[in-house]
Amino acid sequence: MKLLRLGIIGATGLVGRTTLDVLAEWNVPLQSLRLFASDESGGREMHFTGATLPVEGLKEVPEALDAAIFATSRQVSRRWIPEFRAAGIVVIDHSAEYRMAADVPLVIPEINGAELHRHRGLIANPNCSASIVVLPLAALDRAIGLRRVVVDTYQSVSGSGQDALAELDAQLADPVAAPRVYPRPIAMNVFPQIGPIDEEGHCDEERKIVEELRKILNKPALGVYTTTVRVPVRIGHSAAVTAECDVVAPLADIERFLRQMPGVIYERENYRTPLEIAGRQEVFVGRMRQSGDDPRILQFWVTGDNLRKGAASNAVQILKALMQDP
Amino acid sequence: MKLLRLGIIGATGLVGRTTLDVLAEWNVPLQSLRLFASDESGGREMHFTGATLPVEGLKEVPEALDAAIFATSRQVSRRWIPEFRAAGIVVIDHSAEYRMAADVPLVIPEINGAELHRHRGLIANPNCSASIVVLPLAALDRAIGLRRVVVDTYQSVSGSGQDALAELDAQLADPVAAPRVYPRPIAMNVFPQIGPIDEEGHCDEERKIVEELRKILNKPALGVYTTTVRVPVRIGHSAAVTAECDVVAPLADIERFLRQMPGVIYERENYRTPLEIAGRQEVFVGRMRQSGDDPRILQFWVTGDNLRKGAASNAVQILKALMQDP
Repeated sequence: MKLLRLGIIGATGLVGRTTLDVLAEWNVPLQSLRLFASDESGGREMHFTGATLPVEGLKEVPEALDAAIFATSRQVSRRWIPEFRAAGIVVIDHSAEYRMAADVPLVIPEINGAELHRHRGLIANPNCSASIVVLPLAALDRAIGLRRVVVDTYQSVSGSGQDALAELDAQLADPVAAPRVYPRPIAMNVFPQIGPIDEEGHCDEERKIVEELRKILNKPALGVYTTTVRVPVRIGHSAAVTAECDVVAPLADIERFLRQMPGVIYERENYRTPLEIAGRQEVFVGRMRQSGDDPRILQFWVTGDNLRKGAASNAVQILKALMQDP
Repeated sequence: MKLLRLGIIGATGLVGRTTLDVLAEWNVPLQSLRLFASDESGGREMHFTGATLPVEGLKEVPEALDAAIFATSRQVSRRWIPEFRAAGIVVIDHSAEYRMAADVPLVIPEINGAELHRHRGLIANPNCSASIVVLPLAALDRAIGLRRVVVDTYQSVSGSGQDALAELDAQLADPVAAPRVYPRPIAMNVFPQIGPIDEEGHCDEERKIVEELRKILNKPALGVYTTTVRVPVRIGHSAAVTAECDVVAPLADIERFLRQMPGVIYERENYRTPLEIAGRQEVFVGRMRQSGDDPRILQFWVTGDNLRKGAASNAVQILKALMQDP
C-alpha cells in the first residue's frame, strides 16, 4: 500500500467535513493531510483525529501532494483541476465538471471499480442521487437486465450545502422568510427543481442522473425518466424507483443479487427513512414489489446518506482503492 | 334546480370543515344544513355564513334530509350509509368503503360526470391523490391514449387528519417526540407508506390509486405503478408522473387538451408547490417534458389541494350536479 500525501479542497463545506469524518472513522492511513478552502475560510482551523490542522487558501497548486479530493463547485474544479493534474496530483472530483468526459472514469467502486485503472490523473465522483440509486439498479441489471427505469427523488437540503440548511432553519423559524438559495420556500414544502431547467424542460439534476446512470452502468441506451424533487429533510436522499427489466424471474432469485450487492442493505417489506440512515455508509433498499400485471416491472424505495455514499465516503473508497493499486 | 336538505357527517374533521368553507365560498343554495359528528363532538357549534349551527351526534338516521356528505372513516360509512340509502337519502361518500363497488359511481365531474345519472343513492368521492392526478391523465388519455403510468406521490399531512397535523407540530417542537399516528417520524423526514402493506407489498394508498384511476378513466387494463410517500407538508398533495401513451403527437397538440381540461391550470415550464396552491380548487400541472428518446413518454409535476379538489370541493361539485339534475 502506498501512503499518500492528501489534500482536501473545499474542506470547510459539508462534503469536506464529512470526508474528514470518514477518513477518521475508517482509520485511513495517510502520509500527510492538508486542508484547503476559499480565501474567506483561510485562517480557520479544523480538527482531525486529535490534531488541529490549518485551513489554507488555495492560491497556487500545492507542493508535495500525491492526491486531492475536490469538494467544490464546478467553477473551482474547472479553474484548478487541470493544473493539479499537470503537477502529477491524482484528483478525485465531486463536481459535475468532468464526469461525462470520455477519459474520466465515473466510479462507484462496488460497480465499476475496474474503471479506476484507466484513470489519467482524474476520477469523477458521481452525483449524490445517482450514487445512491445506481447500487440497487446495478444489482437488478446483473440479475435480469435493466431496460427502462423511472426514478423520482426526495432529496435533502444538505445536498445544497450549509447555506441551504440555514435557509431551511430560517424558514422553520419564520415561514415568510424569503428563499435566497432555493427557487421556492423549502420549509413545509416540496418543489420539483434541482438546478436550472434547460430548453427541453429537464433540470440539471435530472440530466445528471440520466447521463451518469448510463455511464456507470455502461448502458448508453438505457431509458431513464426522472423527476428530481427537494424535500424538507436535512440529510438523506431517497427515491421511488420503477424498473422495467429484460426478462422475468422469480422475485426470490432477483433478491439474491440485491442481498449480495456490496454497499446495499436489502429488506423486501421494510423500508428506511432519511432520519434513520443519516450517518450510515450503506444504501437501504426496501418496499420491493414485483408487478402482478407485468412481472418484468419492479418497484422499490431506496434511501442513503447523500453526504456519505452520495459523496464523501464514495470518494474515500476511491482513494483507498488508489492506495491499494495506484 | 332542487334545493336540498343537506347533512354533513363528520363535520368537525378537516374535510368536513373544508366542505363548509366551499359551500359558503360558492354560495351553494341549500334548503337546510345539519352537521353531524361522533358523539365526542356533540354539543359543539360551528359557524356557517354568519349562522351558528349545532353539531349533532349521529344516533339514528336523521329525518328530513335529501342528501348527506360522509366525511368519515370507512367504519362509519359502513355502519351508516346502507341505512341512509334505505331512508332515501342520497349519499356522497369520501371514504374508500364503496368506491370500487360496481353499482357505485366514482366521480370526478370534469371527467365522468355522466356517471352520476346512474347512481342508486350513493356516489363515491375518489381518493385524494387519485382525484388530483387523474385530471391531467384524463386529458392525456383523450389526446393520445394512456398506456402505462408511473405516479410517485408527495402527500401532505392533512390527508391524515387533525391528529396527524398535531403530531407533525409536536415533532417540529421536539424532534424525539414518538410517532403515534404515523409509522415513522414525519417532521424533517419522508416515508413511503400510506396505510397498511399487503401481501404483495403494496400499501393501501397505492392499491386505491391503481384501482381508482382505472375506474375513473374507464380503462380497467391501464398499467399503473405508484409509490405513495408522506412528506412534511401541511396541505397539498403532489406527484411526479411519467405517462407512456399510445401514439406520438407534437407536444403543442397534446398541450391543447391540457389547457382545455376543466379544473386544470397548465404551464409547460413553470410549476407550483403545495404552499402556493393550498386553498385553491384547481389542479396545477407543470414541468411538462416529452422524452427525446421515446416521444410517447411524457413527464410532469402535478399539485393540488388534497382537502379541496382531493376531497371537499369535488364532493360539492357532485352535490351541485345532483341539484341541477337529481
